[in-house]
Amino acid sequence: MITALAGGVGAAKFLTGLVKLINQEDLTVIVNTGDDIKLHGLHISPDIDTVIYTLAGVVDDEKGWGIKGDTFNCLEAISRFGQETWFALGDRDLATHMYRTMLLRKGQKLSEITAKITRAFGLKLAVLPMTDSRFETRITTKDGSIHFEEYFVQKKFQEEVLGVEFVGAENAEPAPGVLDAIAGSELVVVCPSNPIVSIGTILAVGRIREALRKTKARKVAVSPIVAGAPIKGPADKLLKGLGFEVSAFGVAKLYADFLDAFIVDVADIAEKARIEELGVQVKVTNTIMRSFEDKVALARSVLES
Amino acid sequence: MITALAGGVGAAKFLTGLVKLINQEDLTVIVNTGDDIKLHGLHISPDIDTVIYTLAGVVDDEKGWGIKGDTFNCLEAISRFGQETWFALGDRDLATHMYRTMLLRKGQKLSEITAKITRAFGLKLAVLPMTDSRFETRITTKDGSIHFEEYFVQKKFQEEVLGVEFVGAENAEPAPGVLDAIAGSELVVVCPSNPIVSIGTILAVGRIREALRKTKARKVAVSPIVAGAPIKGPADKLLKGLGFEVSAFGVAKLYADFLDAFIVDVADIAEKARIEELGVQVKVTNTIMRSFEDKVALARSVLES
Repeated sequence: MITALAGGVGAAKFLTGLVKLINQEDLTVIVNTGDDIKLHGLHISPDIDTVIYTLAGVVDDEKGWGIKGDTFNCLEAISRFGQETWFALGDRDLATHMYRTMLLRKGQKLSEITAKITRAFGLKLAVLPMTDSRFETRITTKDGSIHFEEYFVQKKFQEEVLGVEFVGAENAEPAPGVLDAIAGSELVVVCPSNPIVSIGTILAVGRIREALRKTKARKVAVSPIVAGAPIKGPADKLLKGLGFEVSAFGVAKLYADFLDAFIVDVADIAEKARIEELGVQVKVTNTIMRSFEDKVALARSVLES
Repeated sequence: MITALAGGVGAAKFLTGLVKLINQEDLTVIVNTGDDIKLHGLHISPDIDTVIYTLAGVVDDEKGWGIKGDTFNCLEAISRFGQETWFALGDRDLATHMYRTMLLRKGQKLSEITAKITRAFGLKLAVLPMTDSRFETRITTKDGSIHFEEYFVQKKFQEEVLGVEFVGAENAEPAPGVLDAIAGSELVVVCPSNPIVSIGTILAVGRIREALRKTKARKVAVSPIVAGAPIKGPADKLLKGLGFEVSAFGVAKLYADFLDAFIVDVADIAEKARIEELGVQVKVTNTIMRSFEDKVALARSVLES
C-alpha cells in the first residue's frame, strides 16, 4: 500500500506517472482541502477535483485543472447578477460542484462524497480529503487577510505574503481513513506540491504529522522547488513570507522531522550535502515533468528511492 | 396599473404583446410557483423564468422556455453521478437557478430574489411569485402522486389525471405586493394559462381569490382552450380528470365568481351564449398567437374588452 499527500496540479501530474507503475487499488491519496471555497453557493474542492480529473484523463492539460474542452456559459451568464467570476468554473466542472454541494446539504461528509465522485470518474484508488472539517487557508498581505484562492487566482499571487492562517486547523480531524492509510502503508509519498498551503495544511490537521513520524512506512518527498523557484504557483512567495529559504533545502527542513528521503532536481545537486545534514537521504534526478515519460520516470525514482 | 396572473409559456407569449402597448412600469405579473422544483440541489422556478426570459427576449423561441442557444454540458456531465436529467437545464439557465438558490440559502425570500433577477434581465415590470411559501402541485395518476414537473416533463402528461394536490396551499401566504397589486389595478388579466395548475394554483393561495372578487379592477381572462383543446400542455387531461368540461365554457365556469369578461377564440363562438349565462361578458377574437402581431392584437383585445 502506498499513500500520497497531494495538493493540486503538481501532485496530479506526479500521480499520473505513479498509477502507471502500481495498481490504483493500492494507492490512497490524501488531498489538501485548505483551498476549498464556496462560490455561487457551491462547495468547490479545487485540489480534489484536479487530482480526480487528471487521473481520470479528463483534465484540461494545458491549464492543469478543469475539464478538457469545457465551456464557460454558466459562469458568463451568472455575471449578469453581479456575481464575481474570477474563479473559472466550466459548465462540465460545475456538475461536480453541484453534486458535491447537494450531498453536503443532505448531511453527507466530504470524504463520502469524494469517494462517490472518484468512482463516478471510473477511478479505483482512494481519494481522501485531508479532513471533513472546515479548514480554510487564508493569506495575509498588506491589504489584509484573504482566502487563499483570492490570493492565488483573483490577485494572481502578486502581493508579498505577510502571513498564512489555517482557519479551523485546531479543531480539524483527519477524514476517516487518513490515519489508517498512513499507518498501514509501506511508502508515503509527499508529492511535489506547495510545502505551505498544500502539504503544510495536511500536516496541520490533527495527528497527521504525528502519524507520519510514527508510521513504519518509508517517507519520500519530491521537491517542488527547482533551482530556487517553484515550477508553478506561489511557493516562493509563501516560503519567503514565512521566513523560510526558497530552496530544496528550505522544503526539506519543513519535512525533516518525519522524512526518510528527498528527491531533488539535478539543478539542485549542490543542496545534497546540506539536506543530508538534516538526516534525510537525497536522491538527485530530473523532477521536471514535461512529458508523460518524465512523470513515470519520476514516480519510478520515488518507488526505487 | 395592470396586474396579470400568469403561468409559463402561454402567459409569457401574451405578455410580450401586452408590454408593447403599455409601460412595463405599469405592469405587475403574479406568477405560479406550484411547478417550482428542486433538482441537483437547485431551486428552479420554471414559470417565473419563462416569463422573465421571454420578456427579456432571451427565451428559446422554439421551445418557449429556456435560453436561446443554450448549451447543456453541465446537465450531461451530472448524469455521470447517476443524477436524473429529464428536466432540461441549460448552462446559461443554470446561472439563474444557482443565483436564486444561493440567495434563498442566505435567507432571502423568493419575491426579493425574483425582483433582483427581473432587474438583472433589464426588465422594469414587477414579477411576483404568487407566494414565498412552499407550494407544490402534485398530480395523482394510477401510479400514485408525483410532482407536477414529473408528470408534465418526465412522463410527458400521458397518464390520465386522477387528482391534483396543492401541497402547502392551506398555509401559503400571497407574496408581498400580490394583494396590493390586485386591489390597486384598473385591470386584472388572467393570461391564457392552464386553469388548474397555473391559474388554479394562484387562486388557491391565501386571500387571492377573495381579493379578485373584491377589487374594483376589471377582470378579463383569455381562454387557454380553443375548440375543445389546449394550445399546449395538459389542460385537457387536468380538466377532464377533475370532472370539468374541456371547453372555453369549462374554464369560464372556474373563473365566473370574479370574472367580468372572457376572451374566447373565433373557433368557440358557439360557446358565447353559455358563457354569458354565467354572468360573464364574452369577446370573440383570434387567440392563437403565432406571430408577434397576433400577440399584440390579442393584448389589444384584452385592453379594449
